[in-house]
Amino acid sequence: MNWPLLCRLLGLLAMLVGGSMTLSLPWAFPFAGQVEHVETRGAIGLVSSIALSLLTGGGLWWYGRNAGKDTILRKEALAVVGLGWILAGVLGALPLYLSGSYRKYYPDAPELNVRVTVADALFESVSGFSTTGASVLDELEDPRAVPRCVMFWRSFTHWLGGMGIIVLFVAILGQLGAGGKALMRREVPGPISEAVRPRVQEHALTMWLIYVTLSAIAALVYSLEGMSLYDALCHSFGTLATGGFSTYNDSVGHFGPLIQWTVILFMFLAGVNFSLYYLVLRGTPRLGEGKVWGRLKLVFGDPEFRVYVAILLIATGLLFTYLLTRRQYDSVVEEFRHAAFMSVAITTTTGFGTEDYTQWGESAKGLIFLLMFCGGCSGSTAGGIKVIRFMLLAKVVRLEVEKAFRPNVVRPMKLFGLPVDRDLRHDVVVYFALVLTLFVGGWYALCLLEPGDQWAAHDDVPGAQAEKLIDCASAVASCLNNIGPGLGKLGPAENYSDFAAGSKLLLTVLMLLGRLELFAILVLFAPRFWRVN
Amino acid sequence: MNWPLLCRLLGLLAMLVGGSMTLSLPWAFPFAGQVEHVETRGAIGLVSSIALSLLTGGGLWWYGRNAGKDTILRKEALAVVGLGWILAGVLGALPLYLSGSYRKYYPDAPELNVRVTVADALFESVSGFSTTGASVLDELEDPRAVPRCVMFWRSFTHWLGGMGIIVLFVAILGQLGAGGKALMRREVPGPISEAVRPRVQEHALTMWLIYVTLSAIAALVYSLEGMSLYDALCHSFGTLATGGFSTYNDSVGHFGPLIQWTVILFMFLAGVNFSLYYLVLRGTPRLGEGKVWGRLKLVFGDPEFRVYVAILLIATGLLFTYLLTRRQYDSVVEEFRHAAFMSVAITTTTGFGTEDYTQWGESAKGLIFLLMFCGGCSGSTAGGIKVIRFMLLAKVVRLEVEKAFRPNVVRPMKLFGLPVDRDLRHDVVVYFALVLTLFVGGWYALCLLEPGDQWAAHDDVPGAQAEKLIDCASAVASCLNNIGPGLGKLGPAENYSDFAAGSKLLLTVLMLLGRLELFAILVLFAPRFWRVN
Repeated sequence: MNWPLLCRLLGLLAMLVGGSMTLSLPWAFPFAGQVEHVETRGAIGLVSSIALSLLTGGGLWWYGRNAGKDTILRKEALAVVGLGWILAGVLGALPLYLSGSYRKYYPDAPELNVRVTVADALFESVSGFSTTGASVLDELEDPRAVPRCVMFWRSFTHWLGGMGIIVLFVAILGQLGAGGKALMRREVPGPISEAVRPRVQEHALTMWLIYVTLSAIAALVYSLEGMSLYDALCHSFGTLATGGFSTYNDSVGHFGPLIQWTVILFMFLAGVNFSLYYLVLRGTPRLGEGKVWGRLKLVFGDPEFRVYVAILLIATGLLFTYLLTRRQYDSVVEEFRHAAFMSVAITTTTGFGTEDYTQWGESAKGLIFLLMFCGGCSGSTAGGIKVIRFMLLAKVVRLEVEKAFRPNVVRPMKLFGLPVDRDLRHDVVVYFALVLTLFVGGWYALCLLEPGDQWAAHDDVPGAQAEKLIDCASAVASCLNNIGPGLGKLGPAENYSDFAAGSKLLLTVLMLLGRLELFAILVLFAPRFWRVN
Repeated sequence: MNWPLLCRLLGLLAMLVGGSMTLSLPWAFPFAGQVEHVETRGAIGLVSSIALSLLTGGGLWWYGRNAGKDTILRKEALAVVGLGWILAGVLGALPLYLSGSYRKYYPDAPELNVRVTVADALFESVSGFSTTGASVLDELEDPRAVPRCVMFWRSFTHWLGGMGIIVLFVAILGQLGAGGKALMRREVPGPISEAVRPRVQEHALTMWLIYVTLSAIAALVYSLEGMSLYDALCHSFGTLATGGFSTYNDSVGHFGPLIQWTVILFMFLAGVNFSLYYLVLRGTPRLGEGKVWGRLKLVFGDPEFRVYVAILLIATGLLFTYLLTRRQYDSVVEEFRHAAFMSVAITTTTGFGTEDYTQWGESAKGLIFLLMFCGGCSGSTAGGIKVIRFMLLAKVVRLEVEKAFRPNVVRPMKLFGLPVDRDLRHDVVVYFALVLTLFVGGWYALCLLEPGDQWAAHDDVPGAQAEKLIDCASAVASCLNNIGPGLGKLGPAENYSDFAAGSKLLLTVLMLLGRLELFAILVLFAPRFWRVN
C-alpha cells in the first residue's frame, strides 16, 4: 500500500468536505431568511467542523506531500474509495454533533429532550452521504432542535454523495493516472463498465454538469411552485441524489399535489442512467451525430430504461389497486397520486413520503418490501440492486435451466448489443448472493442487538411483538439499499431514533456497503488486502 | 423426447408406488393391533388407490412397451425424475382422498367437520414424498378422522421419498443405460457428483441397504424404548427420511425424554452424507482397506461433516442460551433437550417437534428461520440448501473479494482434496440465487393468495395481523427446504389446514422444487425442453 499517496488523496478529500460545509453557513444568519436571530450554536458547530475538517485534511495532505506524481493503482483506488467515504461520513457527522442538536425535542417538557449521540450523528451523516435518507431526528421543523444551517448541511451531504464525492474529486483533480477509472468504477453504480466514453476526467465533469443542471432545474421549479429557496434547495438535493431527507416532519406530504407530482417526475429522472442524458446531449461516435429526436428515440429503446419504466408502471398499478379496493383515501385521484409517489420513491430508493404506507395492508407492505431491492438504472444516483442486474440474472437463470438438459449449449449472451462474457455473468450472480447474505446476516445481527423494548412499548398487545422480525428485516433492506423508511415502527411516520447505538452503527455500515456496491468496503475487512503489495 | 420410453418408465414407477401401498393395508385389520374393527373406509380407499395406481402404471407401460432397450438420455432422465415425482405425488394422494378422511374432525360437533379436498390430499402426499412433513390434518390420533392404514401410508411416503423413489428404481431395474447416473444425480442431493463409486446400480443398492438398515435399527430401538410397532415404524420412517410426519398431535412431544434423545440421534445420523457410511463399511480403492477405526477417523475428518456438527452445536448453544435467560422450562436439563431437539430437527429439515418454539421469543424465532435454509450434508436424506453449498459459497465470496483488488489472481479452489472448477463454483452461486428468488417470489405470491382472514381470526388485536408477512415467509421457507413447521400460525402447535386451496398448491410445487433441487422441476416449465430434440 502506498500510504503517502493514500493520505494525500484522503487529505484533499477531507478539505473538499470541509470546504463544502461553508456553503451551509449563510443559513445561520438572518439575512438568508431562515432565522430571526443568528443561530449561535449552529454557527459555532459548523465553523468548528469546518476547522476540524480542514485541519485533518491538511495534516493528511502534509503527511503525503512527497507522494508526488505516483499513479493510483487498483488497490489504492479501492482504499481511497472505502476509506474516503468513511472519512467523509465521520467529518460530515461533526456539525450535527458539535452543534449540540436534539434527537428528541419537546419544547414543553425539556426533561424528555435527548441530545444527538456520536452514533446518532454518524448514522445521520452516512445516511446523508450514502443517499439513504434514514433519520434519527424526531423533530425537523423546530430550529431549537436542529439549527437550520445544520439541516442544510444534512441535505447537502445527499447532494455530495449522490453523484459521488470521488467522482467530483476526479472531475476537479484530473485523471490521477490509471487509477482514475478504477476510482470511478467503484462509485458509479452498475455492473457494466462504460466503454463509450474515452476520457475519465471529461466523463466525470460531464456527469457532474448534468447532475448540477438537473438539480438547478428542480430547485427552480420547486421555487416557482411555492417553496422557499431553502426548501427548494434542500428538496432538490434530496430528489436528484435519490436521498430522501426532507426539512419537514411530514416529508413531501407537507406540500400540495402539484409539488408532489413534480417530485415524482424528478425522482424518476434521477433514477435514469445519466449516460442516457449524455447520449441525448452529445451523441457518441458510435451512434453518429443524429438529430435530438433520433437520440431521444434511442433513449426509449434502451432496454434497461424500458424495464425500469415497466417496473414503475406495474408497481404503481398494484399499489393503486390495493388502495382502490380498500378505499383508503377520499378520492381516486388522491389514491393514484400516493400509489405513484410511493412506488417511484421506493423503487428509485429516494424514500420521500407523502402518506404512511404501513397503513395500506399486508400485501402492499410486502410489495414495498420487494421494491426496496429493485433500485433504479445503473449509472443513476439510485441505490438498490439496479434494474440491469435483475435483467442479467434473468438471462443467466434461463441459460442455467437450459444447461440442465443441454449441458453443452453455448449461447452468446448480449445486452445493449454488447456481449456479456462469463466473468460478468458470474459477477452478477455473486453480487446477488452477497447482497442477500449481507441482508440475512444484518437482519439476524439486528434482531440480536435490539432488546425489543421499543416494540413492546409501541403496541401493548401480546401478538404485536412479532413485528420485530419484519421491522428489523425492513430496516436492513432499507439501509442496505439506501432507501430510508422501512415497515412498521420504521414507516414514513416514524424513524430510527429508538434503535440501540450498536444497531445504528450496524445500519451505518450497511448503508456504506450498499452505496459503494459492497466491494470497496468488503476489501477493507480482508487481511490480505492490507498485507499484499 | 422419446415418449414411449418415458411412458414405460413412468408406468413402472406408478406400479412401484401402487405395490408399496399394499404394505399399508394390514393396519386396517384388527390382527395388526391398531384397530378393533376393520377400517372399512380406509381399506376401501387404499384398495381402490392400489387398483388405480396399477391401472395407470399398466396403461403407461403398455403404451411404451415397444421402447425396448433404448438408453435414457439426459433429457429423458430429467423428464422421468420431474414427471415421476409429480405422478407419485398424485397417486400417493389417492388413499387420503378416497378414504374420505377429515381435515378437521370434532367428534362432538360433526357439523364443523371438514373433509380432505383434492388440494389437501395433494399437499399431504407431496409433503410426504418430499420429506417435508407439513400437514393439513388437525387430528392425527382419532382413527375416525384418518384411518390408521392411511396414516401408515402417509408416513411410508416419507420413507419412499427419503432416499428417492428413482434411486430405488435404479437399484431394482439396473443401470438403464447412460441415463442411470443422470437419473440419480437429480435425486441424490448435493452439488458434487460422486466420483468414488464405479457402478450406478451397485451404488443405488448400497445406499438403499444402508438406509434400510438404519431405519430398521431406529424402529427396533424405538420399540425397545416403549413405542408400539406401528408407532416405531412410522417414526423411524419420519426420522431417517428427515420427514417429520408423526402419528400424534404433539409430535415427538408425546413421548418421554429417552425417546426424544433417541430421535435426536437418528435425525443427526440421517443428516450425514450416506457415502460416509459406505466409506466406513467398505473402504474405497483410493483410501485402501484400512481398519474400521482408521475409517471412522476419516469420517470425522470430512470437512462437511465437521461444519455440520459445528452448526448443530452452535445452534443448540444459542437456543439453549435463549431458553436459559427466559427460564422457559422447569429445569435446565429440559431446556437443553428442547434446544438440542429443535436445532437438530430444523437443521436436518426433519421438522419433528417437542415444544412450541414460537413461544421462545423473537430472536429464537429468527434463528430458527435462518436454520431452515441450512439443511444437512450433501448425499443425506435432508433437504435445505446443504452445508457443502454454504462452504463453497464462502470460498467463492472470499475469492471474489480478493479479485476486487487483485483482478488476475488465480487461486485453485479445493474441497475434499478435489479441485473445484469454475463451472461448479458458478453453479453453486446460481443455486443460491435461484433458491432465494424462488423464496422471495413464493413469499409474495403466498401473500397475494392468502386473504388474511386466518390471521385476523387468529388474534383479535390490530397489530397482530402483521404476522402474516412473517408467517407466509416461514411457510415458504419451510416448504421449499422440506422442513414442515413454520413460525407463528404455522408453528409446531398448528398446521397448514387453514390455507386457501391455491396457497396449498403453490406450497406443493415449492416442496417438489426443493426436494429435487430445482432443475428437474424448472425444466418442465421451459418450452425449449419440450421442443428441442
